Amino acid sequence: MENKEISKALLKRLPLYLQYIKALPENTENVSATKMAKALGMGDVLVRKDLAKISGDDGMRKLGRAKESLIRDISAFLEVNRTTCAVLVGSGKLGRALMDYEGFDNAGLHILAGFDSNPVAPETDGGKPIYSVNRLESFCKSHEVAIGIIAVPADNAQEVCNKLVACDIKGIWNFSPKHLTVPDGVIVQSEHLESSLSALRIQMKNN
Amino acid sequence: MENKEISKALLKRLPLYLQYIKALPENTENVSATKMAKALGMGDVLVRKDLAKISGDDGMRKLGRAKESLIRDISAFLEVNRTTCAVLVGSGKLGRALMDYEGFDNAGLHILAGFDSNPVAPETDGGKPIYSVNRLESFCKSHEVAIGIIAVPADNAQEVCNKLVACDIKGIWNFSPKHLTVPDGVIVQSEHLESSLSALRIQMKNN
Repeated sequence: MENKEISKALLKRLPLYLQYIKALPENTENVSATKMAKALGMGDVLVRKDLAKISGDDGMRKLGRAKESLIRDISAFLEVNRTTCAVLVGSGKLGRALMDYEGFDNAGLHILAGFDSNPVAPETDGGKPIYSVNRLESFCKSHEVAIGIIAVPADNAQEVCNKLVACDIKGIWNFSPKHLTVPDGVIVQSEHLESSLSALRIQMKNN
Repeated sequence: MENKEISKALLKRLPLYLQYIKALPENTENVSATKMAKALGMGDVLVRKDLAKISGDDGMRKLGRAKESLIRDISAFLEVNRTTCAVLVGSGKLGRALMDYEGFDNAGLHILAGFDSNPVAPETDGGKPIYSVNRLESFCKSHEVAIGIIAVPADNAQEVCNKLVACDIKGIWNFSPKHLTVPDGVIVQSEHLESSLSALRIQMKNN
């Protein structure tokens, strides 16, 4: 469990490294792990270990790592250049905001359509279609859908999850405050805003 | 660094425990850590350790823990019954969705108002006011604001963060894809949707 979490934590740090490196002045040739660690408020050893995992060979570290190869390695690891198609279920405010969020397209996630038991509109402000959830199965059969995004209330989340799994979707991105049970071979990534809030408040209290 | 992350992970597990326990049949007297671990797909040892940290004394574990006292202890630890006031900067789709998200009120977060350099509307669909960001400082002076929520594009995030810190806000909840630098005494909790997406995709690939 803890191993898995640390590995998830690494995956959350990598985009920060990538952003930092890309924002360096254009004529920068080498990236100093020490400077990057300091700028990002992270531990020096941690950053070095992370870069060694992604970019291999740690021998040159005194000189820093070549900027361009580091960008290439991290991008390849995160697969930011690959496009993944998704459907989203739940067309409330959060669901529609996610469907129209431009950051996902930049990160290679293309949300093809939204589904809802009772669509409030035929499409989002950004022009993404919202269909009846009855059409989910046929839609998934006729499109290559890798990820199902859940943005429904907690009470409906497991039912929606089961439907997505039945459509042979192997990755569930869960924005409902509900723990989901899935069969082996399906991965769930959950965003728990209430949990993050608790984490923030407790850190503030202990600070 | 890793210690801190594990502790954040604990904070993310606690709301799941609370949700599971609250959903148990009404006549349940004791909570079995083993059953809960199984239901949530977590390790038995991990769950036991977590509960011992929150609820103390581990001696009764063969009989399970009293349901009501566990609910009380976890709720107290997460401070779900305390209300914290917040302001939000950025009134795009995500910002407005967050302002109207009912789950926050249930978790004790009250978003008083939104601010934007160029408000698209005087209020959200849910009736929360959106003011010019010029009014942020005076608003914070006349209200008890503990948390500042950032929902602006990456390019503006640090500037907005600085403004919130200047308003003496000690907790920043960052929804922009940008690493923020803050002075000592200020806590940042960042949500990185793109990073979560990468985590999901890489897990799917390795599955």
